[in-house]
Amino acid sequence: MNVTVRGKSRHFRTVSFDAERNAVLLIEQRLLPHKFAIVASHNFHETAAAIRDMVVRGAGAIGATAAYGLAQGARAFRGRDLKKFSAHHETVYRTLKAARPTAVDPVNAMDQVRSAMRRGETIEEQQALALAAAEEFASEDVQHCQQIGQHGAKLIRNGSTVLTHCNAGWLAFVDVGSATAPMYAAQARGKQFHVYCDETRPRSQGATLTAWELAQQEISHQIIADNAAGHLMQRGKIDLVIVGSDRTLGRTGEVANKIGTYTKAVLARRHGIPFYVAIPLSTIDWNLKSGFEIPIEERAENEVLGAWGEIETPHSALRTPHSRGRRYVRVANPTSGALNPGFDVTPAELITGIITPAGIFKPKDLWRRRRELDWSAAGSDNRA
Amino acid sequence: MNVTVRGKSRHFRTVSFDAERNAVLLIEQRLLPHKFAIVASHNFHETAAAIRDMVVRGAGAIGATAAYGLAQGARAFRGRDLKKFSAHHETVYRTLKAARPTAVDPVNAMDQVRSAMRRGETIEEQQALALAAAEEFASEDVQHCQQIGQHGAKLIRNGSTVLTHCNAGWLAFVDVGSATAPMYAAQARGKQFHVYCDETRPRSQGATLTAWELAQQEISHQIIADNAAGHLMQRGKIDLVIVGSDRTLGRTGEVANKIGTYTKAVLARRHGIPFYVAIPLSTIDWNLKSGFEIPIEERAENEVLGAWGEIETPHSALRTPHSRGRRYVRVANPTSGALNPGFDVTPAELITGIITPAGIFKPKDLWRRRRELDWSAAGSDNRA
Repeated sequence: MNVTVRGKSRHFRTVSFDAERNAVLLIEQRLLPHKFAIVASHNFHETAAAIRDMVVRGAGAIGATAAYGLAQGARAFRGRDLKKFSAHHETVYRTLKAARPTAVDPVNAMDQVRSAMRRGETIEEQQALALAAAEEFASEDVQHCQQIGQHGAKLIRNGSTVLTHCNAGWLAFVDVGSATAPMYAAQARGKQFHVYCDETRPRSQGATLTAWELAQQEISHQIIADNAAGHLMQRGKIDLVIVGSDRTLGRTGEVANKIGTYTKAVLARRHGIPFYVAIPLSTIDWNLKSGFEIPIEERAENEVLGAWGEIETPHSALRTPHSRGRRYVRVANPTSGALNPGFDVTPAELITGIITPAGIFKPKDLWRRRRELDWSAAGSDNRA
Repeated sequence: MNVTVRGKSRHFRTVSFDAERNAVLLIEQRLLPHKFAIVASHNFHETAAAIRDMVVRGAGAIGATAAYGLAQGARAFRGRDLKKFSAHHETVYRTLKAARPTAVDPVNAMDQVRSAMRRGETIEEQQALALAAAEEFASEDVQHCQQIGQHGAKLIRNGSTVLTHCNAGWLAFVDVGSATAPMYAAQARGKQFHVYCDETRPRSQGATLTAWELAQQEISHQIIADNAAGHLMQRGKIDLVIVGSDRTLGRTGEVANKIGTYTKAVLARRHGIPFYVAIPLSTIDWNLKSGFEIPIEERAENEVLGAWGEIETPHSALRTPHSRGRRYVRVANPTSGALNPGFDVTPAELITGIITPAGIFKPKDLWRRRRELDWSAAGSDNRA
C-alpha cells in the first residue's frame, strides 16, 4: 500500500526481495507508527532474526519472509556439490523455522518453495526456482487479500461507519491485509466511509498499526478506547464490524482472534450490527472440533501493567509530538499483578459472515464447502 | 481504609480536617498509585484549588472537601461584624463552587453546612456549627458507604470472583467507597474472594486507584485489559460484577457510569452473571426521563492517544519499578485523532440490582420507593 515518505506517496510491500543484492526488504514494524523505515536483511541468519525479533509480524508477512529467506539462503550457496547444497538449504530451513517455532505460516510457505525446488536438476536451476516460488507465494498472498477486498467491499456502503479491532492490515500480510482489504477496495470504488479503530489494549495494535495504515491511505478514521464501542453502537454510530482471525475452525465456524474480539461480537449482536471476519484460507483449521481446544496464550503481565510510547509533554501531545524515543511506562499500581489472555474465541452464531478470497460464507457452511476452501489439501493452484 | 506507610498499616480517610491548624487534609490522588502522600490545605483558596486540580476526585470526596472548605473559610474570619462575616462566607461558598462547576455534590454538601450555620447567632457559634456540620457530612458519607457494604457483602460468596470497573472505591468517597464497600465488608466477615479490576482505559483508574486500594487492603486481585472480561466470563471465571455510578435515573433505573460499564453489563447478561451497581442515594437523579437525556461528555483526545505512567525499563517493569517520574507517552499513530466519550448509559434491564445504603433494589423499583430513597426531599436525617 502507499506510504508518504518525505511528502511523496509511494507504494511499498511489507516484505519484498532485492534479487541483485540477494536481500529481503522489510518494513521495520517495531518503529511504527512513530518512524517508517525499510530494512534489508543480507543473509538468512539476519532474516531469521527479523522474524524472531518481530521486525516483521502477521501470518502472511512472516510466511513470505520465510519463503524469501529460504530462497536467499539457497542463492547464497557457492559450490557445485548437490549434496552439500541440500544440506545447506536444510540448515536454512531449520534456522528460519526455529525463528518462530509455534507459527505454521513460515513452514507452509517454505514447504511450497521446497516442493518447487525439486523440479530443478542443477543447483542453479533450484536457486532460480526457489526465488520464483517465493515470489509466487508473496504474489498469491497479495492476490488473496485483494480477493477478500473485492468480496468485502460491497458490505461497506457510502457513508458507512466501520469498527475494526487490532491489526489485520497490510502490515500483517505482504500487502492489502485481510480486515482492511474491504476498506481499501471500497475506497478504490470511490466510497466515503469512516473507520473506528479499537486501540486494542494491551499491545495497542489498533492505535499504532491500523491507525497508521489508514492515515497513510487517507481513510477517515478515529481511534477509540476498547471501552467505547458499546456506547457508540448504542447511539447508532457503528454500521458494520470487520475483524481478522488468527485461527478459524472449519468444523464449527468459531474464530480465535485478538482478545476483545468476542466482546465486540456480543455487542454487535445486541445491536443488530453485522459482524464479519476476513481471513485468508490458510488460517482455517480443519482439525479442531471445538473452540475450547484452542490454547489461549497467557502473555506477559507488563503488557497490561503499562504501555509503550514516545515520550512527550502532555501539552504538546496532540498532533505535534516532540519525540524523545520509545519508552515503557508503568501505569498500574506497582504492587498489583495482571492476567493477560492474548486471544479469545467468538462462536459461529455471532458471526454474520466469513470473508475469504473465495467469497463470503456463513461460518457454519465452511465445513460443507471444505473441498473448495481447503487449499492445503487441494494444492496451491486451488488456493483461491 | 488502611494504607501501609513505612511498613505499618494505618487508617486514613480520603478527606479529613485538622481543627487546630484549620486545615483540610487530603490524600494527594494525583501521585497514586506510585506515591502516597497527605497534603494539607491551609485556607479555602487552597482547598478550592485542590478540588479544581484533581488532588481530590469522586462525588463523596469532593462533597466533603467543599463542606470542610466552607467551615475552614468561616473559621478563618477575624472580626465581629456579622454582615461582613456573611459576605465573607458567601465568597468562600462561591469560590469552592466554582472549583468544579458541573458537580452537584459540593453544592449539596455546602448547602447542608450553611443550613446548620443559620441556627447560630454569633459568629463564634456559626463557625462552630459549620465545622460540626462538615464533620457530620463526612461521617454520613462514611456511614452510607458502610451500609452499602453491609447490604452488598452477602452477594460475595466464599471463593467468588468479582469484576469491577473504574474506581468507585474509598478514594472517591471519604472512606470505604461504593462498589468496593461490599468487598471490604465481605473481607471483614472472613470471606475469601478474588477481584478482577478492569484497567479502565483511557484514564486507567482501575489499574491505578482500585488496584492500589485492594493491594493496601490485601484483597486478592489482578488487573485485566478491558478487552479480557468477555473471555473470562465465557470461561466461567467471573461470578459477579459490581460497579459504581455517576448518575442513576430514579424514574427509569438507568445508570450512567464510566465508559465501558455498559459493555460489561451486556457481557454479564449473555453469561447469566449478576450485575450490581452500588450507589449512595445522592447520585439518584429524580428528574430526567431517559438516559438519552444525559449529556455524554467528550473528553480530550490525548487520553486515548497515550498513557501516563512511571518511566521504567521494560526489563525491570515487573514488581521492581525504578521510578523516574510520571510521564505521558504517545502510544498512537501521531497523525491520527481519537473519539473519547467519558461515560455510557446502562439500561435497567441489564442491572440485577442497585445496592444503596437503604438496601438492594431492582432498578425499576426506585421510582416506586422514592419516598424512602429521595434524601434531598426528606432532609438529611432521612438520608439513609
